[in-house]
Amino acid sequence: MKKLLLLIVVCALAYGASAQNIIRTPVPERAKGQTDMVGFAADPIPVVRVGFIGLGMRGPGAVNRFTNIEGIEIVAICDMEQQNLDRVQQIIEGAGRPKAKEYIGDENAWKKLVERKDIDLIYIATDWVKHTPMAVYSMEQGKHVVSEVPAAMTMDECWALVDTAERTRRHFMMLENCAYDRFEMATLNMAQHGVFGDLVHVEGAYIHDLRQLSFNDRFSETESYQPGAGHEPNDQVRRIPGPVGYYDKWRLEYNAEHTGNPYPTHGIGSIAQILGLHRGDKMNYLVSLSSAQKGITAYAKERFGEDSPEAKREYKLGDMNTTLVYTEKGRSMMLQHDVTSPRPYDRKHAVSGTKGYAAKYPVYTIAIEPNGHSPMKQEEMREFLTEWEHPIVKEVGEIARSMPASHGGMDFIMEYRLIYCLRNGLPLDMDVYDAAEWSCIVPLSELSVVNNSAPVEVPDFTRGAWNKVCGYSHAMAE
Amino acid sequence: MKKLLLLIVVCALAYGASAQNIIRTPVPERAKGQTDMVGFAADPIPVVRVGFIGLGMRGPGAVNRFTNIEGIEIVAICDMEQQNLDRVQQIIEGAGRPKAKEYIGDENAWKKLVERKDIDLIYIATDWVKHTPMAVYSMEQGKHVVSEVPAAMTMDECWALVDTAERTRRHFMMLENCAYDRFEMATLNMAQHGVFGDLVHVEGAYIHDLRQLSFNDRFSETESYQPGAGHEPNDQVRRIPGPVGYYDKWRLEYNAEHTGNPYPTHGIGSIAQILGLHRGDKMNYLVSLSSAQKGITAYAKERFGEDSPEAKREYKLGDMNTTLVYTEKGRSMMLQHDVTSPRPYDRKHAVSGTKGYAAKYPVYTIAIEPNGHSPMKQEEMREFLTEWEHPIVKEVGEIARSMPASHGGMDFIMEYRLIYCLRNGLPLDMDVYDAAEWSCIVPLSELSVVNNSAPVEVPDFTRGAWNKVCGYSHAMAE
Repeated sequence: MKKLLLLIVVCALAYGASAQNIIRTPVPERAKGQTDMVGFAADPIPVVRVGFIGLGMRGPGAVNRFTNIEGIEIVAICDMEQQNLDRVQQIIEGAGRPKAKEYIGDENAWKKLVERKDIDLIYIATDWVKHTPMAVYSMEQGKHVVSEVPAAMTMDECWALVDTAERTRRHFMMLENCAYDRFEMATLNMAQHGVFGDLVHVEGAYIHDLRQLSFNDRFSETESYQPGAGHEPNDQVRRIPGPVGYYDKWRLEYNAEHTGNPYPTHGIGSIAQILGLHRGDKMNYLVSLSSAQKGITAYAKERFGEDSPEAKREYKLGDMNTTLVYTEKGRSMMLQHDVTSPRPYDRKHAVSGTKGYAAKYPVYTIAIEPNGHSPMKQEEMREFLTEWEHPIVKEVGEIARSMPASHGGMDFIMEYRLIYCLRNGLPLDMDVYDAAEWSCIVPLSELSVVNNSAPVEVPDFTRGAWNKVCGYSHAMAE
Repeated sequence: MKKLLLLIVVCALAYGASAQNIIRTPVPERAKGQTDMVGFAADPIPVVRVGFIGLGMRGPGAVNRFTNIEGIEIVAICDMEQQNLDRVQQIIEGAGRPKAKEYIGDENAWKKLVERKDIDLIYIATDWVKHTPMAVYSMEQGKHVVSEVPAAMTMDECWALVDTAERTRRHFMMLENCAYDRFEMATLNMAQHGVFGDLVHVEGAYIHDLRQLSFNDRFSETESYQPGAGHEPNDQVRRIPGPVGYYDKWRLEYNAEHTGNPYPTHGIGSIAQILGLHRGDKMNYLVSLSSAQKGITAYAKERFGEDSPEAKREYKLGDMNTTLVYTEKGRSMMLQHDVTSPRPYDRKHAVSGTKGYAAKYPVYTIAIEPNGHSPMKQEEMREFLTEWEHPIVKEVGEIARSMPASHGGMDFIMEYRLIYCLRNGLPLDMDVYDAAEWSCIVPLSELSVVNNSAPVEVPDFTRGAWNKVCGYSHAMAE
């Protein structure tokens, strides 16, 4: 054993630059005749006919926002609970639109919706383990698909999304709403104009105390979490009473069985765009380290008692996961995940380059050369952010912020952009490779954690096309 | 090759929990009859006679602070430059104390100082590569030793400090001044009283824009960095003209030849005390990832020109290094180092547990259950910090803060505690194992970085005694 270890050390030292100690996962070969989807655009769709699957937590807000977007039709809706369908029909009728066809009854009701011939776009807002199976089936039925985050939870699912999109030539977009938030969009705009100089390091996180929500019953009358509140620095989390909890406690159930970072979004979306992943740069490998699990058990003991099954159960998810990524261009990324500790909401969103630095949490911080060492004062920063406001936010930010359940507008901007691109026959803002790249952190971080944080290769989901486009951009019609 | 990799994957997956993929460094056996130094205390020294080596940047301030501490004698001083000796003699005489003996002339002048029989304590404030050789020789000459940070730059040096201290039964303390800063001491006090609950994750960093300072000539007349300024959130860095630069540009020279994290202090000191490293917990392994180097070259081009030797030279140090540590108790540590990017000064100092969270940068943030999700408002936090003010800071904080070049007081408190413990025959606040543990991040992070961030074992420098003491404490006389 000792000898073997010494040998490993020696090899490692001797071939430091080589990659022989990196854990690799299988990369399926692209089928004959199948081509990549980089820059893919479908024919324009004047009126986008939409079907929604999953109307529990995020779905109703999505439908509500869609009723405010031009050029769409809400054709059909699907859920496991009639009351959710009823709630959404009220929203639809309240907007003066015709009732949608309803699909309910069993675990496969959604398939009937997907098989309809009068639907262009499937909007999936179910629990995350159903995203890929539903998306794959929908693309095979000729539909464009958008899904909540993460899009996939395993490497097989990541590749299934990529291969199905490439084979069927259908759009798949993961609904990374945080990429459309005001500060994130401004920093993307700044990065695109070289304000940060040569990019060196970025950080993103999903630090969000979900202990209460994770244990709430679907219909618990205990006060429940208000989506979208507390997501801005110093914004207090408002809690309102209401019947909200994850369907079958799916988040808790998943986190009980897995470690690593099960939810790399929402931290990764915007920084990935800023780095231009598969648009001139790409993730090469990652290492991931998780603390032990203490938070869920401590919370369960408080809420359900020392001897409760909730307190005695084993939960595999370490409270704090930190994942480090090394990119082809030598940039480093740091991603964190913690949903089980008492901490203020934090997505980090830090961008560091040779000419400047910006970070969103816990307070907006911007420092640009020649004053890189000292952050801008409030007033100067406000003016700077206004100056660098992203054109798309300038265009629709105001109406977006007026939307309910829109996380301060970003959800609406995302959906506005989605429909705009589909109607104009443009590439979508986020393609299937973004979905795979951002989601693969889920299985690969877990693979690293269970191997003492060993380096794990991040595959090139474009299979060679990562350098075709140089830098991130939003497609615009003439 | 492919096969070998697959094999590695399989083994790794099969033996996830095993440590076979962790790079290990040699652990020398403890010599027969030699025992550990945990809790070591020397005989009381009523008047501590001190010799100072290195009076360039940090030395003069140290001498100045010592003139304000009771029960010390400044016996001798050593430097390579006469003007530094002159400057310090002025400080000593200005304090109404007798001139110190001077040692100068060649690279070995310090040995003559160390060999004096009328010195109890050697204070080393030279460049970091000389710390261990000087410390080892001083302990062998029967002296207690304190040295600037890091104490050691290689694993051999870490072990040399440990073995020499154990063999000679002399104190070695690394001067981790930031462990005595007000917020850090308050959070230590909070942790010791369970305010954070069970600790889960901690963060420390040394993010400090040293580009200008690193390139300054020793006697450059360009405006130069003011030590200690800008180390508090929103504290602007004041720059004053003066002849300050690293002797022979030692920092730049080292960073040109090494990657990883060459300066884990000052981020690690306080969080290590909070975790109680080798006092019931210990670091088991680390992974470390560095970005490419872009910052120094970009700065050199600006300052010296595209074709200058400074711009064309190769620098190995990646701008941003992030190191993750997993401890015996399942806590995770995140350490960052960046001295070559335009960023506000940042030591992080984040402490996360099952009952609360605190972080110092970029703004003080404290959130404690039942309001773990929302940070305290300014006024509440101020009261909370006053309530948890560390007893030692209560005792000497005011006089400490009145000291010049004291980093807001922490340097003085550190030296006050050092002399207090020596005079009372108590264990020092930081022992030789702290010095080795905190310094070993330097070589081990580099070892991980050059091996694609592979996990590297952090050895137990106490060689079995890490669990003898439970939790960190400051020794106090009756």
